[in-house]
Amino acid sequence: MINVLFAAREARWPEYQIPLQQAFAKAGLTVNLSQNHPPDTVDYIVYAPNSDVQDFAPYTKCRGVLNLWAGVEDVVHNETLTQPLARMVDYGLTQGMIEWVTGHVLRLHLGMDAHILGQDGVWRTDTPPLSKDRRVSIFGLGALGAACGQALASLGFPVTGWSRSPKDIAGITCLNGDKGFQVALEAADIAVLLVPLTPQTTGLINAAALAQMPKGAMLLNPARGPVIDDEALLAALESGHIAQATLDVFAVEPLPADHPYWAHPAVTVTPHIASTTRADTASEMIAKNIARDQNGQGLIHLVDRTSGY
Amino acid sequence: MINVLFAAREARWPEYQIPLQQAFAKAGLTVNLSQNHPPDTVDYIVYAPNSDVQDFAPYTKCRGVLNLWAGVEDVVHNETLTQPLARMVDYGLTQGMIEWVTGHVLRLHLGMDAHILGQDGVWRTDTPPLSKDRRVSIFGLGALGAACGQALASLGFPVTGWSRSPKDIAGITCLNGDKGFQVALEAADIAVLLVPLTPQTTGLINAAALAQMPKGAMLLNPARGPVIDDEALLAALESGHIAQATLDVFAVEPLPADHPYWAHPAVTVTPHIASTTRADTASEMIAKNIARDQNGQGLIHLVDRTSGY
Repeated sequence: MINVLFAAREARWPEYQIPLQQAFAKAGLTVNLSQNHPPDTVDYIVYAPNSDVQDFAPYTKCRGVLNLWAGVEDVVHNETLTQPLARMVDYGLTQGMIEWVTGHVLRLHLGMDAHILGQDGVWRTDTPPLSKDRRVSIFGLGALGAACGQALASLGFPVTGWSRSPKDIAGITCLNGDKGFQVALEAADIAVLLVPLTPQTTGLINAAALAQMPKGAMLLNPARGPVIDDEALLAALESGHIAQATLDVFAVEPLPADHPYWAHPAVTVTPHIASTTRADTASEMIAKNIARDQNGQGLIHLVDRTSGY
Repeated sequence: MINVLFAAREARWPEYQIPLQQAFAKAGLTVNLSQNHPPDTVDYIVYAPNSDVQDFAPYTKCRGVLNLWAGVEDVVHNETLTQPLARMVDYGLTQGMIEWVTGHVLRLHLGMDAHILGQDGVWRTDTPPLSKDRRVSIFGLGALGAACGQALASLGFPVTGWSRSPKDIAGITCLNGDKGFQVALEAADIAVLLVPLTPQTTGLINAAALAQMPKGAMLLNPARGPVIDDEALLAALESGHIAQATLDVFAVEPLPADHPYWAHPAVTVTPHIASTTRADTASEMIAKNIARDQNGQGLIHLVDRTSGY
C-alpha cells in the first residue's frame, strides 16, 4: 500500500479525488489517497504550492513531491524541502497552452479585433500579411515554449526561440545568452513569453527589452506576471512602440479591477486561463510518474533546485 | 514570343504587371504581357471573371485561361469559353485560408470574444475545453478544405470532412454523399464551409442542415455567400440553435450597411479577406503553369466544366 497525501486547497479535492484514484488503479498501483495521512507515513505528496503544507521536514519517508502545476516558483526555494520535486508536464497543460498561444498569435496576426469590435457596416478590405512575413519570438524553450514554437512554425511563422541554456528544436531558430536575447527581441513582431519565474526572469521584459523590439511589436504573456515590468510596458504601449499586449498572468491575481491594464485599449486581459491543469490528464501523469518510481526507473520532470525550475 | 493578355479590372494592372513579368522571366519564358493584344494573337489569358472579356470566341489560338482566383463560378458556364480553364491554386491563397480558418476556429473554440469585448475588470476563470473535445466539420475537401482540415487536425481537433466525391486525406475522417452529409452536420461543433459555388451547393446550408447541427454549433463561411440560406441562418441564430456565425462572403458584396448580419450580436462579418490572391505568389503559379504547357506537360489545376469547379 502506497500512501499518497493530497496537499492542495480544499476545493481541489472533489475535482481530483476520483480522477487520481482511477489513474492509480489504471497504473496498477495500490494507493491509499488522503488529505490527512500522518506525515511520517507519506510516500508521495501531490502538491499545490498554496496548500497548508509548508514544512516538509516531518515527511521523513516521502520519495517525491509531485506539483500539480507547471510553475514551481512558490515551492522550489522552500528550505525544508529535501525530497525530489517534480513539475507537472501534462498533455492538457501543454495542449491548452498551444491552443491559447496559437489562437492569440493568429488573432493579433490577422487583426481580428478590428472586426470583432468594429461591426459598423463599413467594408474595409485590408488583407493581412501571410504568416511567413510575421516573425514570432518565443522566450523560454521548456516543454511549453518548444511545443508552442513548433505549432506556430507549422503554421508558417518564422519562429525564433530564446532560452537560458542552448537548445536544438526542429523548426525553431534557437538562441541563448545575452546576445541571443537581443537578436530574439529584434525579431519579435510578436513576442510570446514562456519563461519560468526565477530571479533572472523577474523583470526580463523591461524598458530596454521593449525598446529592442520592432516598432509596432505585439506581446503575449501566458508565463508569469513579474516577468514583465508593468510600468515599462504601459509606457511602451502609451508611446505606440508596442502595439498590443495580451496578458494572462499578473503580479497580483486576480488583477485588481482598477488596474490600468483592464481599461487600456491596447491591452487584453485574460484571467489566467491560457493553460490549466486538467484533473483527468494530470492525474494520469502523476500516477505514471509514481509507477516509474515504484518500478525503479525514478521520477521524471524533476526540478533543478539550482536553476529554480 | 508568347502573347499573354491580362484581362482584369484596370486596378489590378499596376498590382500584377511587374510580378508577372518577373515570374515569366524566372520561368525562362519570353512573354509579351499586355492588356490590349488583338484577340487572335493571344496565347494565354490571365483572367479575372469581372473583366471586360466575356466573349472568348475571338481568342482562336488561345491555349488556356488562367483564373486569378480560386472561385470560377462566374466564368465556368460562359458558353463562349472553349479553351481550357485553370483555377488559381496558389501558396498565398491556400496559406491565407489556413490562417483565417485556424485563427477563427481557435477564436470561437477559446471564446476569445468574451475577453476582447468584455474588459470590465471582472476576473472570470472559465477554462475552455481542449481541442480534442471540440469537433470540427469541413464541408468541401478541395485544395483549401484539405489544407485547413489538416492544419486543424494537427492542432488536436477531431476533423470530419465532407465532399461530393469520395476522398482519402490523412488526419481527416472523410465522408461523402447524402448520408455522409448528415453525419458531418451532426459532428459539427464548428462547421467550416469550403465548398465551391455550384447549383448543388447553393443553399446547401439551409434550415434542415442547420437543424442537424448540434445545439450551440458555430459556423465559419469563407467559401461563397449563396452556400448559406441567409434567412434560415438568421432564424437559427435567433433561436440560439446556432451560437455564432463568422462570415467572410455574402450573396451581395460589399455586404450592404443595413444588412442584419452587421448588427447581429452573434454574427461577425469579415470583408472577403479570408484568402486573397497575392500578386507575387499567384504570378509565380501562372508562370509555372504556362511553362508546363509550353514544355508539353499541359496545364494543371484545370476546371471540370461538368461539375462546375
